[in-house]
Amino acid sequence: MHKEMDKDPASIREFFINKGYTFCNPAMTIPADIVMNFMGEDVRNRLLFTSSPGGDELCLRPDFTLPLAISYINNELQSNKFVYDGYAFRFPSINEKTRYCPEFRQIGIENFGDKNKIDAEGDVISQAYEILSSFYDDHLEIKISDISMFYQLLDHLNIDTHLFNRFRRLYWRGLSATEIKDSIKKIINTRFDIKPRLDLIEEYKNNNLSSIAFIQKLAGSDDLSVFSGRQPDDIVKRYIDKSELSNNNAINDTVIEQITEFLSIKGNISKITQLLDNFQKKYHIDFAEGIENLENRIKILRKNQIPTDMIEFNATLSRKVEYYTGLVFEVRMRNKNKNEPIAIGGRYDKIFEQLGSKDPIPAVGCSIYVDRLLFDEGNNES
Amino acid sequence: MHKEMDKDPASIREFFINKGYTFCNPAMTIPADIVMNFMGEDVRNRLLFTSSPGGDELCLRPDFTLPLAISYINNELQSNKFVYDGYAFRFPSINEKTRYCPEFRQIGIENFGDKNKIDAEGDVISQAYEILSSFYDDHLEIKISDISMFYQLLDHLNIDTHLFNRFRRLYWRGLSATEIKDSIKKIINTRFDIKPRLDLIEEYKNNNLSSIAFIQKLAGSDDLSVFSGRQPDDIVKRYIDKSELSNNNAINDTVIEQITEFLSIKGNISKITQLLDNFQKKYHIDFAEGIENLENRIKILRKNQIPTDMIEFNATLSRKVEYYTGLVFEVRMRNKNKNEPIAIGGRYDKIFEQLGSKDPIPAVGCSIYVDRLLFDEGNNES
Repeated sequence: MHKEMDKDPASIREFFINKGYTFCNPAMTIPADIVMNFMGEDVRNRLLFTSSPGGDELCLRPDFTLPLAISYINNELQSNKFVYDGYAFRFPSINEKTRYCPEFRQIGIENFGDKNKIDAEGDVISQAYEILSSFYDDHLEIKISDISMFYQLLDHLNIDTHLFNRFRRLYWRGLSATEIKDSIKKIINTRFDIKPRLDLIEEYKNNNLSSIAFIQKLAGSDDLSVFSGRQPDDIVKRYIDKSELSNNNAINDTVIEQITEFLSIKGNISKITQLLDNFQKKYHIDFAEGIENLENRIKILRKNQIPTDMIEFNATLSRKVEYYTGLVFEVRMRNKNKNEPIAIGGRYDKIFEQLGSKDPIPAVGCSIYVDRLLFDEGNNES
Repeated sequence: MHKEMDKDPASIREFFINKGYTFCNPAMTIPADIVMNFMGEDVRNRLLFTSSPGGDELCLRPDFTLPLAISYINNELQSNKFVYDGYAFRFPSINEKTRYCPEFRQIGIENFGDKNKIDAEGDVISQAYEILSSFYDDHLEIKISDISMFYQLLDHLNIDTHLFNRFRRLYWRGLSATEIKDSIKKIINTRFDIKPRLDLIEEYKNNNLSSIAFIQKLAGSDDLSVFSGRQPDDIVKRYIDKSELSNNNAINDTVIEQITEFLSIKGNISKITQLLDNFQKKYHIDFAEGIENLENRIKILRKNQIPTDMIEFNATLSRKVEYYTGLVFEVRMRNKNKNEPIAIGGRYDKIFEQLGSKDPIPAVGCSIYVDRLLFDEGNNES
């Protein structure tokens, strides 16, 4: 139930300005290739592409983090902590209840360059919770996870790049642990049924063979039509990935079980240290840092008087954008679990380097979906 | 010089809300074909097209009038007077000084359905002037025109549809009287140099000939490549237009002189009645209604204490969107004439019928370009 139905969402912006964030209004269009690199499949399919009169492929901003990060590394911004309030653009997904148009209002914050990572994360979660709870009588709940532990597990299992990226993509699609398990099994079953041409791969990797020549030798023809119109470089890359997967003995049922078991870890934050500890001991992986970070974030939330009984850890929590690297969290209304989260956030420490920054810049932020915040399910059903 | 550099443009929105306008936020994307129909060449070339996942061709709103009018005839709005505040999208023109991005903030008003047309127009101009003058110490100036008098002149000259539309388009491009004169002369000189096939045109108009058959008979071939890839219907339409132009004896130097003379009429509003009166007597056209409307608008402005010494009539004033039908006006800073207008507005009485309304709905509105309003030329030069 809304505490104050007429409460103006602009008060969220004011709240953050009072907390020291600088108001900014990033560009609405950004180069399409940048957006494509960072967005998960689900978002990519809902982007609004357009082209400039000069023929540049552009994309309407699907969020504020990307245009802000671009402006930041171009030295167009004079601050490190930003609050934005405006429209982002994604065509609605099939399940979207709160809008029919591609634009949706987001108010959110970014904290770029703060090296006290856990403190910065604790502040972002606390502030988001504080301002959102001023909109609702109902209890809010926070879901929290840390992607770095999942990546650490994949590293620990020493699986090859191809499969690593498949797992990453399954994770980013927001699938449940069981769905991911089923998908992994399908992937494993589509192996090579013939012995891969390791001689050609060797020659190609030594730059002694072009992609076209590779295909010619492999297929006895350069007729690409048998490869369903894919590009030569792409065909060769997939062939090599698949051959490496086929050669790799690490993929067995134990690996699948470990991944599935990890992704099934969830529960109230009070029990989660125990569950993660059980897991690390059972599989001889060192989660000490991840567990400590988690406990330190919770300490900050307690200090900020956020009720921790409504904080749940869920290892499969995903944000459908692929730039998160550590903390991910979302805020939901406790009694409306079918609703999409009203706020999402997390850490994305690789984004600036991927955009061309020489130095690493730690970054953490959070976005509030204003339409969802103001959407009253009761109104809609009546 | 800005009266208050920090004055928040949101105060413009509040001003109009206090004047009885309902705040609304129209859709950011609308069907591309609708936009194409209403926008002049200059705007069409700067539109942002996109397509929906279902393949519909969409266009980001280049203004607020079109999406508002669409919502209005779909009965999605509960009011008749609207104020909006948001971003519209056009790639910047070459001369644009105040922005590099395609989005620009507009705050504006619409008054749909008010049958007291002159009163409604006087109110819109007065209110725009009142709120804008709160932003500047400098004197503002208002430029004003009435497109219906130009259309009346074209009717009076009894020129054919083809040339009428050419004149309209020249006008909408915002050319000066001399430029329009030169362009008309060029058009006249590109006539048929052979006798048009009136027999085929007759047969075609009686629906006894398809476009393809027409071209076949005309060219002795249906090889469309000689027509530079245009569509058959289009080729035939242009042929008929051109033949009618060729047959029409009304286009002579006197006609060109009348149009040029009319479009050269400009000056302070105090002298303009006399100039329009001289013109109507010289060429035996009845501008009584246009002159009376102009005088009545000025009366309202005087009553509202708008200083009339800064109001100039200019017959070539154009808005680069083709939906205006009567009053057009713009507000500028008097000492910064090179700047684009900070507000533009006018009447567009045909828009609803063109969008499918059975009944005519009179409409008048005005848009403030917030970037231009806040842009300080001095800052930019220093």
